[in-house]
Amino acid sequence: MQTLRQFQAIFQGFLSRHSFQNLPQELYEPVNYILSIGGKRLRPVLLLISHSLFDREVEKALPAALAIEVLHNFTLLHDDIMDAAPLRRGKPTVHVKYDLNTGILSGDVMLVYAYHHLIQVEDKSKIAQLLSVFNRVAIDVCEGQQYDMNFEEREEVTLAEYLKMIELKTAVLIAGAMEMGALLGNASRNEAHHLSEFGRNIGIAFQLQDDLLDTFGDPSKFGKKVGGDIVQNKKTYLVLKALEVANNSTRRDLEACFSMPEITEPAKVETVIDIFNHLKIKELTELEKKKYLETAKCHLAAIPVSEERKVILKDLANQLMGREI
Amino acid sequence: MQTLRQFQAIFQGFLSRHSFQNLPQELYEPVNYILSIGGKRLRPVLLLISHSLFDREVEKALPAALAIEVLHNFTLLHDDIMDAAPLRRGKPTVHVKYDLNTGILSGDVMLVYAYHHLIQVEDKSKIAQLLSVFNRVAIDVCEGQQYDMNFEEREEVTLAEYLKMIELKTAVLIAGAMEMGALLGNASRNEAHHLSEFGRNIGIAFQLQDDLLDTFGDPSKFGKKVGGDIVQNKKTYLVLKALEVANNSTRRDLEACFSMPEITEPAKVETVIDIFNHLKIKELTELEKKKYLETAKCHLAAIPVSEERKVILKDLANQLMGREI
Repeated sequence: MQTLRQFQAIFQGFLSRHSFQNLPQELYEPVNYILSIGGKRLRPVLLLISHSLFDREVEKALPAALAIEVLHNFTLLHDDIMDAAPLRRGKPTVHVKYDLNTGILSGDVMLVYAYHHLIQVEDKSKIAQLLSVFNRVAIDVCEGQQYDMNFEEREEVTLAEYLKMIELKTAVLIAGAMEMGALLGNASRNEAHHLSEFGRNIGIAFQLQDDLLDTFGDPSKFGKKVGGDIVQNKKTYLVLKALEVANNSTRRDLEACFSMPEITEPAKVETVIDIFNHLKIKELTELEKKKYLETAKCHLAAIPVSEERKVILKDLANQLMGREI
Repeated sequence: MQTLRQFQAIFQGFLSRHSFQNLPQELYEPVNYILSIGGKRLRPVLLLISHSLFDREVEKALPAALAIEVLHNFTLLHDDIMDAAPLRRGKPTVHVKYDLNTGILSGDVMLVYAYHHLIQVEDKSKIAQLLSVFNRVAIDVCEGQQYDMNFEEREEVTLAEYLKMIELKTAVLIAGAMEMGALLGNASRNEAHHLSEFGRNIGIAFQLQDDLLDTFGDPSKFGKKVGGDIVQNKKTYLVLKALEVANNSTRRDLEACFSMPEITEPAKVETVIDIFNHLKIKELTELEKKKYLETAKCHLAAIPVSEERKVILKDLANQLMGREI
């Protein structure tokens, strides 16, 4: 079996061979830029791994993996505009490095190319099924981003609404990638379903991990300033959980932190973390994350392929499980 | 044979039955809005007419026609943001009526739904071919918009570059719509090619007609202020042709108009029109438009179906041909 790193290298090679030399350069250079600034290529790699459970010829799944990575980066590009984000993976975002119009139009052409790559798969009989999954995923991601923006404007958001939002915005893309890999590998409908559910559950776990890292991560490993979500008053799982379990007095203290702009940044972060610690929010969030990871592992266990082939996915879930902060 | 108006009514009915009731409302209401503010539905209707040359069952082509109309309106929505346009068909543009983020995200989801509609065609064996045309068209439209934006920044644009730009931005979508209609009607490759070329040529003729109307149109019929392109210093076919045929002295006069912001609007429009008249720009542009329409009619003539079935397309070309200003 190939290792995670080997799958990453195979995908990276394929991606590099598909960089744009097309004209007009103003349209395509930003596409190469955002695709080059990296990330772990988690989604396409999971598609390839899912495919590898059923078919060893990784090449057959590469066009679909590229489609998923291009779709993902398209959503990052446009989300960064909507969130007015200055940086992505430590580099200037496209609309900052170039301009707003470039950000919009280069993103648009990426979405079209995602479809273009998808239909390059060798097995044309799979195209209709792949497109059906791909369309649903792309629609869900748009809806998730809209809910995310809506929540910023709203006073009250429930934990259930938050979980639904991160499912749409993050988890369905991972689920869809794994479902597509399975479909391309001629998995049964049932097997594809279990892989999709595995992806959906680890996707939600990943997002909860992200929320944890932003507040409790080791600054030397995390790569961005710890407490950023608190400074920005973001309604993360941690905050929503705290509001749910706090008594009236603690809830008022927490709400006061988020409504007092004059409070100094480090003091605000410190006060909120004190409240989180008092309410055991870190532990409660870890528990929730583990619940999703356990569910993911159940779905993996239900797939009737050899343990040897599944070990890479089990390791991935275990790594995430063990990564206490 | 059905009339143009009948095809419009059939398409309009289908479009109405596909308005969005989905949530979140913030995402889908702007989509319903832009799709409801009208237009002549030229592109989907041409797809249906093209299909009708080979197959009388119009229903078979409706999902593809809807895909083309949704793609077209997606490009309008995002182009209006990039061009900072306040109005579309006399109504506020989406980013003005709602906001920038809504404009971006609702546009994105429209592009995904265009693909969703496309793959609803009954004859699934056609999907790969349809997608290949559709992707090429969507990419060309993005490239055309980029060239259009580039030209605004550039001092010199040649007529050939301008014609290439309007071909990408406008004509390929009409060409692609007609090619897709033909493919769905089981036309031969050759027949589909001729219909595509018919569409491409009338598409360019339409754009030249638009350029003419903006400067020489009857204000009571045209629906917007005559001379808008001149006021905005737009590099239209008229201007580029004038710069090509003018002697040095007249060229300097024309360039002076476009570089003098202090000149009062009506005086500027009047002076430019005087120069156009002196150089017979209206007649030269009419001639160019007719050249494209003649080519379109040649391609139509080359298609071996009964004259009776083609009459609606011939009428369309003749109407455009005869519409002197």
